[in-house]
Amino acid sequence: MAAELTAHQLIAKHRPTLDQALEAISTRAYWSPHPEHPKAYGENGSLSLPEGKTAFESLLNGRFDLDQPGTDDWTGAEVSPFGPELGITYPHPDVDTLLPAMRAGLRAWRDAGAEARAAVCLEILSRISARTHEFAHAVMHTSGQAFMMAFQAGGPHAQDRGLEAVAYAYAEQSRTPGTAEWNKPQGKRDPLVLTKRFTPVGRGIALLIGCNTFPTWNGYPGLFASLATGNAVLVKPHPRAVLPLALTVRVAREVLTEAGFDPNLVAIAAERPGEGIAKTLAVRPEIKIIDYTGSTSFGDWLETHARQAQVYTEKAGVNTVVIESTDNYKGMLANLAFSLSLYSGQMCTTPQNLLIPREGIATDAGAKSYDEVVTDLAGAVSGLLGDDARANGILGALVNPDVKARLEAAPGIGEVALPSREIANPEFPDAVVRTPVIVKLDGAKPDAEAAYLSECFGPVSFAVAVDSAADAVDLLRRTVRDKGAMTVGAYTTSDDVSSAVEEACLDESAQLSLNLTGGVYVNQTAAFSDFHGSGGNPAANAALCDSAFVANRFRVVEIRKEA
Amino acid sequence: MAAELTAHQLIAKHRPTLDQALEAISTRAYWSPHPEHPKAYGENGSLSLPEGKTAFESLLNGRFDLDQPGTDDWTGAEVSPFGPELGITYPHPDVDTLLPAMRAGLRAWRDAGAEARAAVCLEILSRISARTHEFAHAVMHTSGQAFMMAFQAGGPHAQDRGLEAVAYAYAEQSRTPGTAEWNKPQGKRDPLVLTKRFTPVGRGIALLIGCNTFPTWNGYPGLFASLATGNAVLVKPHPRAVLPLALTVRVAREVLTEAGFDPNLVAIAAERPGEGIAKTLAVRPEIKIIDYTGSTSFGDWLETHARQAQVYTEKAGVNTVVIESTDNYKGMLANLAFSLSLYSGQMCTTPQNLLIPREGIATDAGAKSYDEVVTDLAGAVSGLLGDDARANGILGALVNPDVKARLEAAPGIGEVALPSREIANPEFPDAVVRTPVIVKLDGAKPDAEAAYLSECFGPVSFAVAVDSAADAVDLLRRTVRDKGAMTVGAYTTSDDVSSAVEEACLDESAQLSLNLTGGVYVNQTAAFSDFHGSGGNPAANAALCDSAFVANRFRVVEIRKEA
Repeated sequence: MAAELTAHQLIAKHRPTLDQALEAISTRAYWSPHPEHPKAYGENGSLSLPEGKTAFESLLNGRFDLDQPGTDDWTGAEVSPFGPELGITYPHPDVDTLLPAMRAGLRAWRDAGAEARAAVCLEILSRISARTHEFAHAVMHTSGQAFMMAFQAGGPHAQDRGLEAVAYAYAEQSRTPGTAEWNKPQGKRDPLVLTKRFTPVGRGIALLIGCNTFPTWNGYPGLFASLATGNAVLVKPHPRAVLPLALTVRVAREVLTEAGFDPNLVAIAAERPGEGIAKTLAVRPEIKIIDYTGSTSFGDWLETHARQAQVYTEKAGVNTVVIESTDNYKGMLANLAFSLSLYSGQMCTTPQNLLIPREGIATDAGAKSYDEVVTDLAGAVSGLLGDDARANGILGALVNPDVKARLEAAPGIGEVALPSREIANPEFPDAVVRTPVIVKLDGAKPDAEAAYLSECFGPVSFAVAVDSAADAVDLLRRTVRDKGAMTVGAYTTSDDVSSAVEEACLDESAQLSLNLTGGVYVNQTAAFSDFHGSGGNPAANAALCDSAFVANRFRVVEIRKEA
Repeated sequence: MAAELTAHQLIAKHRPTLDQALEAISTRAYWSPHPEHPKAYGENGSLSLPEGKTAFESLLNGRFDLDQPGTDDWTGAEVSPFGPELGITYPHPDVDTLLPAMRAGLRAWRDAGAEARAAVCLEILSRISARTHEFAHAVMHTSGQAFMMAFQAGGPHAQDRGLEAVAYAYAEQSRTPGTAEWNKPQGKRDPLVLTKRFTPVGRGIALLIGCNTFPTWNGYPGLFASLATGNAVLVKPHPRAVLPLALTVRVAREVLTEAGFDPNLVAIAAERPGEGIAKTLAVRPEIKIIDYTGSTSFGDWLETHARQAQVYTEKAGVNTVVIESTDNYKGMLANLAFSLSLYSGQMCTTPQNLLIPREGIATDAGAKSYDEVVTDLAGAVSGLLGDDARANGILGALVNPDVKARLEAAPGIGEVALPSREIANPEFPDAVVRTPVIVKLDGAKPDAEAAYLSECFGPVSFAVAVDSAADAVDLLRRTVRDKGAMTVGAYTTSDDVSSAVEEACLDESAQLSLNLTGGVYVNQTAAFSDFHGSGGNPAANAALCDSAFVANRFRVVEIRKEA
């Protein structure tokens, strides 16, 4: 079958975008080719909001066929956190058939070269981008994110992270030239002359183990990094968030086919309820790379047992904000209130522990006692979420019963400074929508420590009273070292304190946001500029995205001969 | 104490060399700043051959003091493979004192920045280079390499590999700018503007576990990669090859001190006989990176148990040469004879299995049967090593009794095509010098397979009769996949066979040398151009040197704030 799209055409179409992405990751200035306003879509072949909704609805209560080899069953039991059952079933693999089929296309994929692979990946991303509104609904009804967030984080921001991974992958693969002539002088004798050919080769099949809360955002970096470096990718989605990745796999298979490659280079493995297929797949000899976002226990299991693979994990962490002083008290409160509320605190980057000196803090609005700070922050959250429509738009729905259980248990941990409030969602009456709870804890009390030094994933944060700024920095340092952190925030007008916090973050490899009072939040990172995690503390063994995230997904094979 | 050398001075001195190294790793053309002719030394502050010998001899029968904290004992029992006991003792560490002392200088080392660290590393290398003749004697009398090889491989070639690692480390650390301004348009509202600072931070203390045969060549890449990326480095040499790395540590500590850094950023840990200190050190929480060259069993142990560290291993492998046809029979024989003989085959890159079709091969000197090829190769080796002085210069001495035992056991494996010969070394009568043995095996026989599919480290090679070129390629593929290989060679005039061998090497990630008949040998790789190993087969999990080898030795910490 002749390819409908040649590599040459795809390279011509996407090379300018790739070059811009390469430029962006080296300057780390703002850049994105993916519009983040819903109204930017609907023309030039992209779906409008209503078209995306219709496309999403047409998938419900059906079989999501991908024409994959070795499909022995159909499975799926997704229920939207907003209420409705999706009723979609997906291919369940006969692994012994699917994995060999996925290897069949590897040689042609390798021989295509890094630039063609990047161009194919960019074509996949560009078609996903055109269907952003369809993906937005799929992400919303699997993650529980409110529509606007599902649209942005699940759409353009996820696509940005995928493109960023392609750019890093391309950059690393092109560091070594395709060929070289090596000419070594030998004094009066003839020089030694060799011609050398260097080929980046993928490692084999990569396994992407998806997560419930950000199936595309957390999935795309690993998926595209592996694909762009010459590997096949088997996607094992979270059983509650299959659809966004199934759509992704479908688009990838379409593009691969049209470009003349084997569609089985990208496939999905849906699992039956309680099957735990990830454990089976993760130790298969064909699986050479694993990307995982989820619990520390399973991440540790993967790192320990999947010894045949390169394993990239993002696990649990405890995020801290040090609140020592501010010259913009209102801005700080508003910024923190939003960070605690967005997606009901169900982000791996949401602050959990707010460390506040027990004698209070200095602000532009005068000295504030610990109690005042906590009360004012509670007020800021209440104000932000006072209107139910607005609250629904920020909070989304609780993603699963575990989060609800932790929220309900929070009042048992300490004094409640801000109780959680139930919010009705008129469009989705079955959605479980809750405002965050803030619990006061005394940092010096051992039983409090047990609580605040564990990840309490969801809309629960702890206002931890500490003895001093130095005590706060010590606790920050200990928290990152022992429990890991995806983010650290700090508010201070003191150069000494800010230096001490910076030193702690440099020593313990944590990403720090200082004195955010405007429209950027500690829990948000931008592709091409911000690193997501550091890969240097227990919360994650890799950062999104850097060279280390891509450089070991392929190897360079050299063939040399005499010239 | 004021630094005698400022970072500025060191950068000014070494930046041109660094830039040339950066250029070389991107073009992979020939380049080296380290002369490989013995007579190039002796001026401009470098030691001449006699001066180097005197310097070496002055170290014998003494205590090698390094002024390290936490030295609780002195230990050392090196015996030259050429006979003499070295009589040198080295610091044995109280680990609980030494490791914290090594961490003390990390912050200043980090704050110096990537360029200053590279310049310090280049100053260390440059001082090592000036003492190449001293190192040559140290390498000779620990590895058993003949002088000329100890001089070249232990001197300029090892320094090249160290410099290459520094160049990669600098390149990776400078991919992210030190600072960035991020300006995100917000339509009619003011843009979001953040200033961001990015700092490469080392992981902590790196452990280098040295090997017996190439203490500097195999040690420098890891040592300099770790140091240049902001880590401290603890060197645990092989107990039979301490001196070359102790000299390295001494030079590093001198330069660090003069440049105003803590000398304890580089330290040595010598071990008592049978102590096995590497196992203790490897799982210490302070150890974040491990570089290791040696047995597969201990390499696997490290990968399994040292979970707190990034582990880079080079282990055993089985190197294959496919001999299918040639248009330069004499050149092929001469080239192979040298490869089998150099350093008595005690290189991880020495060919072991020579796969030859049992119906023979086509050559420019007519068709040659399997027996003729083997006999002619045996003759070429005998001819190369016929003169005892020349033989001593090529072979060196057997590094340890295990190699001698394997050599002596070889005749029990199969028919001997070339028996090993004992060679007297007039200068060192106790040296154990032996020519290589070639054993004929039938590739189709299961008992033969057990022999040729295990690494038989030392001067033993197997002339394996195979059914066909296709059979040879299949066996090559299986050998690399199951046992690993640092090198693959092939001789063929057939495009089909060379394509098949190339495909096998690309599929299994093995580095291939095709039709070498001149002065470049399959067991030699040149820094800045050739990769040593691929990191993609069981012989090694990393290649020397590529981005993946350096990119995860540091992390990038971002500190962002509103502009």
